[in-house]
Amino acid sequence: LNPLFASLPTTVFERMSGLARQHDAVNLGQGFPDGPEPIDLLEAAARALRERGNQYPPSRGLPELRTAAADFYNRFDGLALTAKNVVVTSGATEAIASALMAVVTPGDEVVIIEPAYDAYRPLIERAGGVVRAVSLAPPEWRLTAEALEAAVTPRTRVLVFNNPLNPAGRAFDVDEVEAVAAVCRRHDLIAVTDEVWERLVYDDRQHVSLAAVPGMFERTLKIGSAGKLFGLTGWKVGFLTGCGRLLEVAAKAHQYIAFSTPPHLQAAVAEGLTWSSARFADQAAALARSRDHLAEALQRQGFIVLPSEATYFLCLDLKASGVAASAVAFADRAVEEHGVAGIPVSAFMSGNAGDGVLRLCFAKPDAVLQEAARRLGRAR
Amino acid sequence: LNPLFASLPTTVFERMSGLARQHDAVNLGQGFPDGPEPIDLLEAAARALRERGNQYPPSRGLPELRTAAADFYNRFDGLALTAKNVVVTSGATEAIASALMAVVTPGDEVVIIEPAYDAYRPLIERAGGVVRAVSLAPPEWRLTAEALEAAVTPRTRVLVFNNPLNPAGRAFDVDEVEAVAAVCRRHDLIAVTDEVWERLVYDDRQHVSLAAVPGMFERTLKIGSAGKLFGLTGWKVGFLTGCGRLLEVAAKAHQYIAFSTPPHLQAAVAEGLTWSSARFADQAAALARSRDHLAEALQRQGFIVLPSEATYFLCLDLKASGVAASAVAFADRAVEEHGVAGIPVSAFMSGNAGDGVLRLCFAKPDAVLQEAARRLGRAR
Ligand SMILES: CSCCC(=O)C(=O)O
Ligand SMILES: CSCCC(=O)C(=O)O
Repeated sequence: LNPLFASLPTTVFERMSGLARQHDAVNLGQGFPDGPEPIDLLEAAARALRERGNQYPPSRGLPELRTAAADFYNRFDGLALTAKNVVVTSGATEAIASALMAVVTPGDEVVIIEPAYDAYRPLIERAGGVVRAVSLAPPEWRLTAEALEAAVTPRTRVLVFNNPLNPAGRAFDVDEVEAVAAVCRRHDLIAVTDEVWERLVYDDRQHVSLAAVPGMFERTLKIGSAGKLFGLTGWKVGFLTGCGRLLEVAAKAHQYIAFSTPPHLQAAVAEGLTWSSARFADQAAALARSRDHLAEALQRQGFIVLPSEATYFLCLDLKASGVAASAVAFADRAVEEHGVAGIPVSAFMSGNAGDGVLRLCFAKPDAVLQEAARRLGRAR
Repeated sequence: LNPLFASLPTTVFERMSGLARQHDAVNLGQGFPDGPEPIDLLEAAARALRERGNQYPPSRGLPELRTAAADFYNRFDGLALTAKNVVVTSGATEAIASALMAVVTPGDEVVIIEPAYDAYRPLIERAGGVVRAVSLAPPEWRLTAEALEAAVTPRTRVLVFNNPLNPAGRAFDVDEVEAVAAVCRRHDLIAVTDEVWERLVYDDRQHVSLAAVPGMFERTLKIGSAGKLFGLTGWKVGFLTGCGRLLEVAAKAHQYIAFSTPPHLQAAVAEGLTWSSARFADQAAALARSRDHLAEALQRQGFIVLPSEATYFLCLDLKASGVAASAVAFADRAVEEHGVAGIPVSAFMSGNAGDGVLRLCFAKPDAVLQEAARRLGRAR
C-alpha cells in the first residue's frame, strides 16, 4: 500500500460530520449551507434528466456549460475566455487533483500558503512533489512578498493559491494577489489558484482573481466550484480554467481521473451561470447577514471572533477568549458533550499558528446559529 | 508539466466521439447505449433531487447505497459483504484512479493484461509504478497461468484484471480466473479487479468474480459501475469493494480525488440495485440480441466477426476479412468518409496482437446497427 495515503487520517470534515450525526449535534464543521436550495436549478436538473439523455458527455464538458463558464468569468473577472479555456470537472476536488497530477513532476517543490485546504498536501506529495509552506498568522492572516520569496528555491515549479482563503475567511487584496503574481512571474512558476469562494465575498470587498492579473493567465490553472456558487455542494461540478498546453495537460489528467461529469447537472449549472449579478450579490449579502448573526451571538457569549471577509466561515480565537490553548481538544469536547461541531484550524496547518483557533460555518438559518452559539457558550 | 500526461493523446473514446459528431457518423465507438433509459431510475433521481437535499453526502457514500451494493454483490457473487465493504465513487474511472493511487508505490511493478482499458497504464505510471503487460491474442483472447507467471518478478506488487474484458468481449471462465487468483496468492499481490461489465454477460456464461475466489477477498479491490449496470453511463456512480486496510487506504485516496458523489444519483442507484435478477437477465438478453443482429449484418457484408461473450462490444477481424492489416487507418477512413465510428483494438495494446481488429459497440437500436453494417460494407 502506498505509505502516503496509508498514513493519512480520514478528512477532518468527514470525521466531524460523522461525529455531528452520531451526537445529533449542530454541524458548523464541514462547509455546506442548510436551508432552501435554488429551486430553479433543481428544476433545470430534473428536466435535463428526462430530456437530454444520460450518456457520457464530452470529457471536457458540455459545450453549453463551457461557454457559460467562459462568459461568467468574463463578466466577473474581466477575462476574455472562450469555451476552449474551460474544462468541466466532477467538483473542485477533482479539479485540484487533476491540476496537481498534471503540473507536478517528482522532485518539484510546490509552495502552499497555510492555513491550506487539507487536500493540497497529500495530492502534491502523491504526485511526487515536495511541499514548502508559507504560514499566515491570525488575526490578520496577511500574506507578504517576503514570506513568499523565502519559500521559493531553484527547485520550485508550482505555487498553490487559495483566494478567498478557507478557513481564514480572507479575500486577499490587490497588493497581496499582485505579490503572488510577481513571485510566479519572477521564478517562472505555474500557479494553481483555487477560487471556489470567489462569489462569496462580503461587504464592499472585491474578489481579485490571480488569473486576471496581467501576465498570469498563461501560467495559471484556476479552479472554480458550482457547488459553492449555487449552494449545492453535493452536485460536484467544478471548473478548470486556463489556456494552451497547461490546460491541455490538465484535461489529460482529468480524462483518466474522472473522465466526465453528469450531463443533467452540467445543463443546470449552465443555466445558473446566467443568473444576474444582482442575484449573486443578494446571495452574498444574505450570507454576510448570517455571518454577522453568528458573530454577534458568539460575542454575547464572551468569545473573540476574528473578522471574516469571505467564504462560509468565521473563526473563534479560543486562546484570546481565554477558553483553550488548543482548538483540537475543545472541538472534540464541543461535539461530544455540547452538541456543536466546528473544525480546528490546526487541521489546515503544519505549524502551530492556528492552534487556538476554531472554524465555524455560518451558512445556516439564524435559529441554528443562535443555538450553536448558546451551546458553545456552555462549552467554555 | 508532468511529462507523462503531457505526452499522452486525448483518449481514443473522446477522439472518436468527437469525429463522429463532426462527421455526423453512426457512433459505434465509445461504449454507451442508445435508446430508452430506465424511466424508474430517472424518476427516482428527479424525486431525490427535490426531496433529499443536495449537500455533501458522506465521502464513502450514502449508507443506503453502500448497503444496497453489498446486498447486490451478495446476491450475484455469493459474497457476504456489509455496507462497510463498499465505497461509492464518482464513476468507475475515479474508482480505478483511487485504487491505483492507493496501492502503487514508486518502483512497484504492476501486471496488466492487454488488451487493457486505456486508463490503467497512465494511472499506474503516474503513481510511480512500472507496467508489465501480458498480451492476449485474438480470436480466443485466452489467458494462461504461464503467461501470467512470466510477467511476475520479485518487484511485482499489484495485478490489474478486467473481467469481462473490454474490448475483447471475453467473460473469463473459472480456470482463467483461478489462474489469476493463484498467481496473486503465490506472489502475495494485491488485485485490482475491474468488473464493470459483470451483469452484461451473454448466452449461458456466468460472470466469475475474482473477489469471490477463496482467499482473494482480503487482497482485492473490486471496481463496479452503476453506469454499466443500468445503461446510464453519464451518471458516473461507481463502487470500490474490499475490506480492511486495503479498502481504508483506497477510501483515503478517494476522499482527496473526488471526495463524494451526488446524493440524488446515489439514491436512484440504490433503488436500481434492488431490481429483480430477472430484470438484469432481460437487459442482458436484449443486448445479446443486439450483438447477434450486428454480427449477422456484418457477416452479410463479408466481415469476419469474433465471438463476444460479454460487454457492449464485438470485434471485427479486418485482417482475416482481407480488408486491412491495421485497424487504425481503417477506423479513420470509416468515420471520415463512410460515417461510422469504431475503436481500433490497438489503442488497448502495446504489442501488435490487436493490429487488424476493430471494436464496435452494439448497444444500439437495430436500425442503427443495420445502417452501420451497410456503411462498413462500403468502407471495405
Ligand atoms: C469536501 S468537504 C470540505 C468542504 C469544505 O470546503 C470545507 O468545509 O472546508
Ligand atoms: C469513459 S469513455 C469509455 C467508455 C468505455 O468503457 C469504452 O468505450 O470502452
